[in-house]
Amino acid sequence: MALTPQWVKNLKPSGPQGSELLEQERAKSNVSVEKLSKFLFTQSVLDRKHRILEVLQSERVFDKSQNYFAGRVDRFETALARAKKLRKLVVKHGWSQEDLRTANDLISEPGPYGLHESMFLITLRDQGTPEQHEKFLKPAENYEIIGCYAQTELGHGSNVRGLETTVTWNEDDKTFILHSPHLTASKWWIGSLGRTANYAVVMAQLWIKGKSYGPHPFVVHIRDMKTHEPLENIHVGDIGPKFGYNTMDNGFLLFNNVKIPHISMLARFSSVDIKTGKYFRPASPSLIYGTLTWVRSTIVLQAGGVLARGVTIATRYCAVRRQFQDRDAKEQGGENQVINYTTVQIRLLTLLATTFALHFTGRGMMQLYEENQKKMSQDAGKVGDASRGAGPEETHSGSDLLADLHATSCGLKSLASSTAVDGLEVCRRACGGHGYSSFSGIGPWYADYLPTATWEGDNYMLTQQVARYLLKSARSVLKGEKPTNDTTQILAHFLSKADIGAAFDVLGKDEDIVAAFAWRSSFLTFEALKHRDEQKMAWNDLLVDFYRLSRAHSQYMVVRNFYAALSAPSTESELDQETRTLMHKLFRLYALHTLEQEASEFYTSAAVTVRQIQLSRTNAVMKLLDEIRPHAVRLVDAWDFPDWQMDSSLGRYDGKVYEDMFYRASELNPLNKITVDPYPNNETLFKKDESRQLKSKL
Amino acid sequence: MALTPQWVKNLKPSGPQGSELLEQERAKSNVSVEKLSKFLFTQSVLDRKHRILEVLQSERVFDKSQNYFAGRVDRFETALARAKKLRKLVVKHGWSQEDLRTANDLISEPGPYGLHESMFLITLRDQGTPEQHEKFLKPAENYEIIGCYAQTELGHGSNVRGLETTVTWNEDDKTFILHSPHLTASKWWIGSLGRTANYAVVMAQLWIKGKSYGPHPFVVHIRDMKTHEPLENIHVGDIGPKFGYNTMDNGFLLFNNVKIPHISMLARFSSVDIKTGKYFRPASPSLIYGTLTWVRSTIVLQAGGVLARGVTIATRYCAVRRQFQDRDAKEQGGENQVINYTTVQIRLLTLLATTFALHFTGRGMMQLYEENQKKMSQDAGKVGDASRGAGPEETHSGSDLLADLHATSCGLKSLASSTAVDGLEVCRRACGGHGYSSFSGIGPWYADYLPTATWEGDNYMLTQQVARYLLKSARSVLKGEKPTNDTTQILAHFLSKADIGAAFDVLGKDEDIVAAFAWRSSFLTFEALKHRDEQKMAWNDLLVDFYRLSRAHSQYMVVRNFYAALSAPSTESELDQETRTLMHKLFRLYALHTLEQEASEFYTSAAVTVRQIQLSRTNAVMKLLDEIRPHAVRLVDAWDFPDWQMDSSLGRYDGKVYEDMFYRASELNPLNKITVDPYPNNETLFKKDESRQLKSKL
Repeated sequence: MALTPQWVKNLKPSGPQGSELLEQERAKSNVSVEKLSKFLFTQSVLDRKHRILEVLQSERVFDKSQNYFAGRVDRFETALARAKKLRKLVVKHGWSQEDLRTANDLISEPGPYGLHESMFLITLRDQGTPEQHEKFLKPAENYEIIGCYAQTELGHGSNVRGLETTVTWNEDDKTFILHSPHLTASKWWIGSLGRTANYAVVMAQLWIKGKSYGPHPFVVHIRDMKTHEPLENIHVGDIGPKFGYNTMDNGFLLFNNVKIPHISMLARFSSVDIKTGKYFRPASPSLIYGTLTWVRSTIVLQAGGVLARGVTIATRYCAVRRQFQDRDAKEQGGENQVINYTTVQIRLLTLLATTFALHFTGRGMMQLYEENQKKMSQDAGKVGDASRGAGPEETHSGSDLLADLHATSCGLKSLASSTAVDGLEVCRRACGGHGYSSFSGIGPWYADYLPTATWEGDNYMLTQQVARYLLKSARSVLKGEKPTNDTTQILAHFLSKADIGAAFDVLGKDEDIVAAFAWRSSFLTFEALKHRDEQKMAWNDLLVDFYRLSRAHSQYMVVRNFYAALSAPSTESELDQETRTLMHKLFRLYALHTLEQEASEFYTSAAVTVRQIQLSRTNAVMKLLDEIRPHAVRLVDAWDFPDWQMDSSLGRYDGKVYEDMFYRASELNPLNKITVDPYPNNETLFKKDESRQLKSKL
Repeated sequence: MALTPQWVKNLKPSGPQGSELLEQERAKSNVSVEKLSKFLFTQSVLDRKHRILEVLQSERVFDKSQNYFAGRVDRFETALARAKKLRKLVVKHGWSQEDLRTANDLISEPGPYGLHESMFLITLRDQGTPEQHEKFLKPAENYEIIGCYAQTELGHGSNVRGLETTVTWNEDDKTFILHSPHLTASKWWIGSLGRTANYAVVMAQLWIKGKSYGPHPFVVHIRDMKTHEPLENIHVGDIGPKFGYNTMDNGFLLFNNVKIPHISMLARFSSVDIKTGKYFRPASPSLIYGTLTWVRSTIVLQAGGVLARGVTIATRYCAVRRQFQDRDAKEQGGENQVINYTTVQIRLLTLLATTFALHFTGRGMMQLYEENQKKMSQDAGKVGDASRGAGPEETHSGSDLLADLHATSCGLKSLASSTAVDGLEVCRRACGGHGYSSFSGIGPWYADYLPTATWEGDNYMLTQQVARYLLKSARSVLKGEKPTNDTTQILAHFLSKADIGAAFDVLGKDEDIVAAFAWRSSFLTFEALKHRDEQKMAWNDLLVDFYRLSRAHSQYMVVRNFYAALSAPSTESELDQETRTLMHKLFRLYALHTLEQEASEFYTSAAVTVRQIQLSRTNAVMKLLDEIRPHAVRLVDAWDFPDWQMDSSLGRYDGKVYEDMFYRASELNPLNKITVDPYPNNETLFKKDESRQLKSKL
């Protein structure tokens, strides 16, 4: 194929142009994009983003133009080159952790240093002794050793206690012996391990003198520092292609009775005495589990932005794309912008509302987390975490606030990441056929985000934690104990009113919406408690109820946080009246649409009437869609995603959708470098013309 | 990386082995897999599959072992080589169309001959004159010309009437001039066009003497038959990578005033007189639209099998995978099979029931289609089709059966493909972390199937057709016209009982379940009619209601077809009593679970009470899960997917899940051929060792 001929280059899309349509959209609304962005992120965060963006765009290695075309090996090679360059930029510009995170957000692909820079360094720092810091952490921070965090195994993802890798204390020569007794003991899914890491923190079952002490972390040297070949009796490699995340080298790792020195065991909280072989108990396991709670809170905070990226792309494209005329139109006119169709609005605008709901919920969560951090250190050891499985039902003995944070983070992680994942796919489909092209930018983004629904606690598994906590809270309320946090308060309130019944004016008052969500969650909690404690139903038979309960409670949390954020005094000073009113409409759209989606639970709990739900749908929601519609483009603009970050033809800020789609296909696509012989009887398959230069090559 | 060392090869998964677990599963149930397979497919279809499978497996080019690893260009090259080989096999073995379809199902990837063998040949055959058959169809059937079907454009997917490509009759030299006036006129998404085709059937707006006659099909020569380079003033190429379907070369195509001869216009139904330039009107457009109805019916039929593949993989893997102990277990035992958790059953077993529901519905549809085919030819010209858009509301003037078939095919296409797509993703997630690996076989399959939700009528757009038809039917019933098909019958029945109300025993009688679904659909139809005809609401404001209405009516169709299939006399003779009972349980599971998911509509219509819905969930559905559970593996076995077809580590018939995952990662993965230097300051990125042989290479 020749590159685009001149007569094609002279062509423009048929009018009106995408750029004109987006201009019109932006002219329809008075929302101050700048003020709203600042309200969402703060000015300093916005400034940082644009400062870092400028640096990245000027480096050739970060050029994204071949990302969607390259195969696995090329993508990995490029991702590693980028990771190296990024490290150099950090050193050169003295970038902070926050700067680095921002850069990674903008680059928007998982990189081979990912686990080195997160779990490897964190674990060494948190669980190493000063001696281990000197020996491992320091060179790791200098990138003289590159590490990863090897926990999950081929046969064990969720259940950490079931790990099969063993590490046995060898009294004779004061070493440990690492071993993989079965194929299922192979470490699996370990980020940065496949090709990159030469060290790993390995979680293994500790055995001393024939006795098991459970999983502990060990720092293990796995590849030669110079040749980078695996050390003897270690089998390590990449686990192969995935639905997404293919710039990351998730790896496998097996040990054949590998001897490691005593210092390998990360010994801040538990250790084996080198002289006696005596085991010292963990001093403060809850600090470790605190990390998990933090990770989950981060997932909640990020979910809004993850989804907003898809909503931005779909909203802009649906404002540019026109198909069919309005059916009731009196005269022949141009085609209608797709965003004018109510079947599109009911999907996109409700998701737009959801992005803000999740964002404010995440912010609320992080505040709660930080407030509790100090308390956490004080109360260390009191709160267990079995979030990856179904631990003992009565574990929580710490403060009620801590327990609340733990349960909240589990439930909201599940709800928020599921909502973001499913919402992204809704956005992709709302883009029609072109949503399926990689150039839409949604598919690849969705594919990379997808594991979030499974990791850090499977979204189904986690809901058991929430249910367990709610049951425990309900028991304490039933016993007449004084409410100490929001959860026990709403449960106590429900209990006091359950006989009288509720009469929430969900269509008239915002606070009544919040109360109705609290009512439904409380109702389901006491129902579940009855099943478990009175009817003595098996735990397994209640899992489906628990899932629904967790969902209901988490939706209450989202509605409450969204409402609280809009009611905060700072909101009044930071946003003008018109934008505030619009944000309240988005709140109602999210809440009433959710209420209608979950109508049957709201009925059953008698929180609202059948009539109210019908009116929510036919009147309130449809009216809100109509009122929010003119502001859609400005609202997504406020999320402030640079084009470079989204890498999407459909989501371009300037609306030049078709020009960009065409450019990528006609100028950048490597498949167009080959000419094929299409006849079945001809064995000569291809002529490749390597002399033809593609315009952009990394 | 060295290939797998001997000490790793000696390892086995920790017990019990996957193969043992699946053996136990199969021992738990008496379902006759063979009889059920035969009942689903007939013996001759099963025999054909295994006959073709043997041929394909013996050909090296069909080896699948590098499919998940290869990049876009390699995958396309391999796919073309396979298409060529397949064509040779067709000739060599004298395979029928059905044989070829079976082979493609087994290969399970879209191929570059795909559109040549379907739409190109069909259109030439159906719309060409004898002279055109001689000139185009014959060489096309002999693969001397390879073609595609170029309809959609960069700016127009759904709305065919809005196509921008023009074809203008040139009186002077008796030719047509093909032209792309704008960039958005570029043909786009055209299968087999990107690299393969040298001919295209192009849909273009016909202009004669300044007057427009709408879109018509033209056969156009686009690439040189020898050099395979594009002809002059034609710009053609591949549109780039997609979420899936990357073995297919979807293409773009632009014309710069290209002259084509008079014979190019496919002239069976409409033509331009070469002497006078006079236009002759389409004789029978409904024959063309019949094709669309047939395509949609096929999609419904296939949807069950598409979903069943994911359900097969997830069910087998969830029987092999074990995580955690039962929480209520009195003593420490082994870990629990994941399929025993009710949160897994509520997802997988309901989808298992859905596979059968869709299969029988599809079969019912195809019967209806075939019965109507003759009638269709007789009534030709009476039924319009604007399924890709919102055509005139009152178009249907043909027989009621035809109108019913059209509406049914639209609604069921939308419901069935959405159900299959969403269900596949549920299956993937039910596999936990390993579901994300390409080796699961679900992700790639999902990605390739995904466009089905958008093409042949977007799943949202299509629902307008159903609503329009139901409104029209309701109007006729209101006028007191005699019911002529099932739809008007249930509407008339509802109308006669609406004042008295219904009392369906959905928990006790299967036929009452069907009646409750009919009631809800009828209720929503008359509600919608009230909004449109009495309240004069705008069409656009009703689209969300129409979507729900279409969904409700289609779910009724599925429930009705499933029930009818089980009640047929042939079922009694072909299935033993135990299997029949089980199939009835699957029917109830599908129906009651759907009822509970859509509870709010069933309430509102007063088809059932709140109490009934609560009992459906807590008693009926949970009990059915428990009863169906032991038969799960045998039930998926009855779908009879060969391992070779599914290409899934997790779904292996023999349960050797972990061995296969490991083998693919350790022996087949090309990324493990490169050794990287991981240090940020070292510019030397990679050492590639080409001398190391990977085990399988195409």
